[in-house]
Amino acid sequence: MNFNDELRHKTERIETILAQYLPKEEGYQKTVLQAMNYSVTAGGKRLRPMMMEESAALFGNIEEISALPMFMAALEMIHNYSLVHDDLPAMDNDEYRRGRKTTHVVYGEGMAVLAGDGLLNYAFETAASSFDGATTIEDYRRAASSMQILGRKAGIYGMIGGQCADLEAEETESAMTDEMLLFIHEHKTAALIQAAMMIGATLAGAGQDDVMRLEKCAFNIGLAFQIQDDILDVTSSLEVLGKPVGSDEKNHKLTYVTMHGLTESGSKVKELSEEAIDILSSFSRRNLFLEELVRQLIYREK
Amino acid sequence: MNFNDELRHKTERIETILAQYLPKEEGYQKTVLQAMNYSVTAGGKRLRPMMMEESAALFGNIEEISALPMFMAALEMIHNYSLVHDDLPAMDNDEYRRGRKTTHVVYGEGMAVLAGDGLLNYAFETAASSFDGATTIEDYRRAASSMQILGRKAGIYGMIGGQCADLEAEETESAMTDEMLLFIHEHKTAALIQAAMMIGATLAGAGQDDVMRLEKCAFNIGLAFQIQDDILDVTSSLEVLGKPVGSDEKNHKLTYVTMHGLTESGSKVKELSEEAIDILSSFSRRNLFLEELVRQLIYREK
Repeated sequence: MNFNDELRHKTERIETILAQYLPKEEGYQKTVLQAMNYSVTAGGKRLRPMMMEESAALFGNIEEISALPMFMAALEMIHNYSLVHDDLPAMDNDEYRRGRKTTHVVYGEGMAVLAGDGLLNYAFETAASSFDGATTIEDYRRAASSMQILGRKAGIYGMIGGQCADLEAEETESAMTDEMLLFIHEHKTAALIQAAMMIGATLAGAGQDDVMRLEKCAFNIGLAFQIQDDILDVTSSLEVLGKPVGSDEKNHKLTYVTMHGLTESGSKVKELSEEAIDILSSFSRRNLFLEELVRQLIYREK
Repeated sequence: MNFNDELRHKTERIETILAQYLPKEEGYQKTVLQAMNYSVTAGGKRLRPMMMEESAALFGNIEEISALPMFMAALEMIHNYSLVHDDLPAMDNDEYRRGRKTTHVVYGEGMAVLAGDGLLNYAFETAASSFDGATTIEDYRRAASSMQILGRKAGIYGMIGGQCADLEAEETESAMTDEMLLFIHEHKTAALIQAAMMIGATLAGAGQDDVMRLEKCAFNIGLAFQIQDDILDVTSSLEVLGKPVGSDEKNHKLTYVTMHGLTESGSKVKELSEEAIDILSSFSRRNLFLEELVRQLIYREK
């Protein structure tokens, strides 16, 4: 199977898994459940659950890891809750996402706040439900460690920390430094990719050293992805990207590209991604699909 | 020690525990950490962690349960996140709580959304950190089961479910039924009290039957507390209660009292609380402080 067929096949499998863990839309709280599902079923690349599963495959047989689907669904819920809250009028005030009206436009602001809360909470519930399949103390240890990674990477020392710094940088228009920009990218973008790869490996029984190498690998992927995003903002045409060229510049948004220029940014992406692939290919088992996924992700044209 | 001295003493101990688990206000994400702590340190009765600890004391020696303080702090964080999000302009739009300006008034709406998200996420992180102290498979089982209770009672089948039904009832002014009102009270008010008592018992090693009896007991306490709240709204003077008398009626809010009248509501509170105390006093160990706490809570005058 070529890469694109495999990608499509795997994405479909993940859609099936996700659908299995979404709440049924019934009861007096039906509306919040509809709003949650509206957000999650809007599509997207399902990159985080996919990278979790592929990282697990580096260390074990994914069919045998019963906790894996729950954590895959949990991470995608967390990604989606962050989009619902990010889109709120009090945050980015976006009315459209993935070609559909955003959750608060359809269900109202109050319900969108609750839908985001519901997704975040349900993510932890879904992850915690994996303990039901634990029989040995090692099963418990892996699931517990994965819960801790999920919490840390999604929270105030992970994604939420990055969102806070980003919001504040925008609101106060304070002088952006390299260190601060790196903090925002690491936490806002890379943290959930780190969660994906670290949890996949942990559930498959990888040792602490290997999990830490994947943390570094995912950091590189997240940062390269973000810089490439900023590069595309400048170089792509409206036709390819679907949004006005140079919107960052127009919005006076400070990015790696506006701070370092296109040439240096391109070299940085190359350096980061090569190092990421080096790490990936250093484990005793190879996962060529994952390596190609990382390449495609970083060197995308839209 | 009399009840009030003991209550003050225990509340102070809980304040110390909470302070220990709050995040340090440092780093690029400092503002969201400040906003989180602003909400949690605003005071309150600390009822939920207290009921958790007292329920644990029914079944074991609380000094020996290392996971207990983490879950106590986690539950109080969840209670506080729900207040921060409830107060948002898109929800109840409250500018004051406990005599202080609400989080969004001080830190802005976007930061208040993030602070609530931060508290909810950090609650699960804090609870999950209790796995670090687990050594036996039984330790893991109790902590895992407690995580599941916390998730369920806080989420879409618990508190968030109640908030959704409540928000919708207010917005659509749809015909309130007895069943719907009960759903809202059970989920919005009782669910976190259930989490408190069930987790306390679970961590102390109580069996499934006893945990389920406490679930029923906490349901009664939550419902009685809420009906008493509605009674006080009608009967109390502004002086005692600190808010205009009959604000529910003025706001056309349907409550147990407006639907059933004062006499029937009073009988209902009595019936619910007697049954709750009966359950509490039926375990092999008695906790007279907890029994008195429940009485004081329900038969309060403000």
